[in-house]
Amino acid sequence: MGALNDIFGVMFASMSSLKMRAEAGGKHISGAERLLADVELESAAVIMLQRALQHSRGSADKITFSIEEHQDEQIRPGVLPDLTNNLVDDWQQGRDVAQALLVEAGVAEVAAQNALLELHQGAAPGGESMRGAMLIDADSGERLEEDPARGVRASRMDLTDDARQFLEAALNSAGFNNTHVIEALTLAAKVIAAPNLVAELCWSDDPDYTAGYVASGCFGYQRISCLKQQGERRGGRAFFVRTADKDLATTIDWLERVPLLIDQIGTILPGKDWRCC
Amino acid sequence: MGALNDIFGVMFASMSSLKMRAEAGGKHISGAERLLADVELESAAVIMLQRALQHSRGSADKITFSIEEHQDEQIRPGVLPDLTNNLVDDWQQGRDVAQALLVEAGVAEVAAQNALLELHQGAAPGGESMRGAMLIDADSGERLEEDPARGVRASRMDLTDDARQFLEAALNSAGFNNTHVIEALTLAAKVIAAPNLVAELCWSDDPDYTAGYVASGCFGYQRISCLKQQGERRGGRAFFVRTADKDLATTIDWLERVPLLIDQIGTILPGKDWRCC
Repeated sequence: MGALNDIFGVMFASMSSLKMRAEAGGKHISGAERLLADVELESAAVIMLQRALQHSRGSADKITFSIEEHQDEQIRPGVLPDLTNNLVDDWQQGRDVAQALLVEAGVAEVAAQNALLELHQGAAPGGESMRGAMLIDADSGERLEEDPARGVRASRMDLTDDARQFLEAALNSAGFNNTHVIEALTLAAKVIAAPNLVAELCWSDDPDYTAGYVASGCFGYQRISCLKQQGERRGGRAFFVRTADKDLATTIDWLERVPLLIDQIGTILPGKDWRCC
Repeated sequence: MGALNDIFGVMFASMSSLKMRAEAGGKHISGAERLLADVELESAAVIMLQRALQHSRGSADKITFSIEEHQDEQIRPGVLPDLTNNLVDDWQQGRDVAQALLVEAGVAEVAAQNALLELHQGAAPGGESMRGAMLIDADSGERLEEDPARGVRASRMDLTDDARQFLEAALNSAGFNNTHVIEALTLAAKVIAAPNLVAELCWSDDPDYTAGYVASGCFGYQRISCLKQQGERRGGRAFFVRTADKDLATTIDWLERVPLLIDQIGTILPGKDWRCC
């Protein structure tokens, strides 16, 4: 860890959040976010721009970059959760595994059921996918986010270059290698470290990506091989919270604004096979 | 011209307008626009992004790209105006030359005087520079633009690669070589070709660039070596129009929306020296 910490120390000197959002006809088609040393900003922005212009969901007609400088004392060090892969036969079995994991993490049964149903039906008004995540009361299952279309967004987190390389190597040797897993692990690291946060549930709104996960501080990142039907567009995230005084400001501030730079990866644990045949 | 026309024919196949706008703290700090074949879009966008991130007026915190596809039949071929350089002693003499040229182009004396005064004082509310140009009645001098802060913007015009190379070579051998002149010539080509447009007057809002120009269909692009004091931020453009029925829609549509691809450059004519000493 010596070398990592040295690099980490240097990278803390001056860093910025870089966000890219690509739209076509007013609709979001792709996005990306990095937390970077200022010298890395330009090359990372160029890569984002090229990806946005080549995106498979159609040609962008508007691409917006936002850059925010951070003071070194604002940036927190982060740790990736351990990864366990759960193999299931189909999405129905996947949802059962997700429900059991959420309960194991301390989410009330009714709250877990409600979140699964909301994501299934499309959690935004009109049955659409939300832009961000639901905030769900871990006991009552009540939705707490102010804006049910936008929700809450985990933002301003990234891996150091070294952590990214270690993670890619570890995922490769375990037979995973996709950016979905890397991005989701990075986001889950931010989410489960948030104050008052009990667990996270997620599956993608990409119709061709049917895997998802449940993450929590107690068992890390539990990938589930299938959580929705092939071709289904509806997807999203639920963040389960438990607060004594219903004050969500601290949790939301952590999720949306505190910059987190992850310099330690987790372990890839043996998978679990729930399949019948 | 055979080779140029061949290339022009190919480039007409599929083209897009690419615009970049960089801001810092809500203020515009740089911008760029190109009209490009789709295969050139990505590399041009990357160059714009790099320039925006390295801009001397400070770090951008927001960079927006807009991309608009054009059908081949929408794109008009354009011609650059001839260039004459007018050497003057100071900005006061430069303004006298500009006034005389505007009158020569058919602008009423009062209208020319009014435009010079408005640009001098800052034509937007509060004495700021406008984001676009004033539209001035060439007879009465009345300002006709709907929004006096935004004004009217000449947009969606560019040079073919060949025309740009010929122009750079011609400007070099005449002792000019700056992007200000290339951009201004390209813009003036669009402006003076507009329906009902009599002449254009311009000096920059860049405090370190004191040259400007008057352009019209009758005498082309008359560069004037000094039109404002060194260090002065106020600058902008005036488009002088003469319409029978006060209908500005056709003029504005040409200026802002019709894509113009310039494949012919003009001549660099002998300069004029107005200096006393």
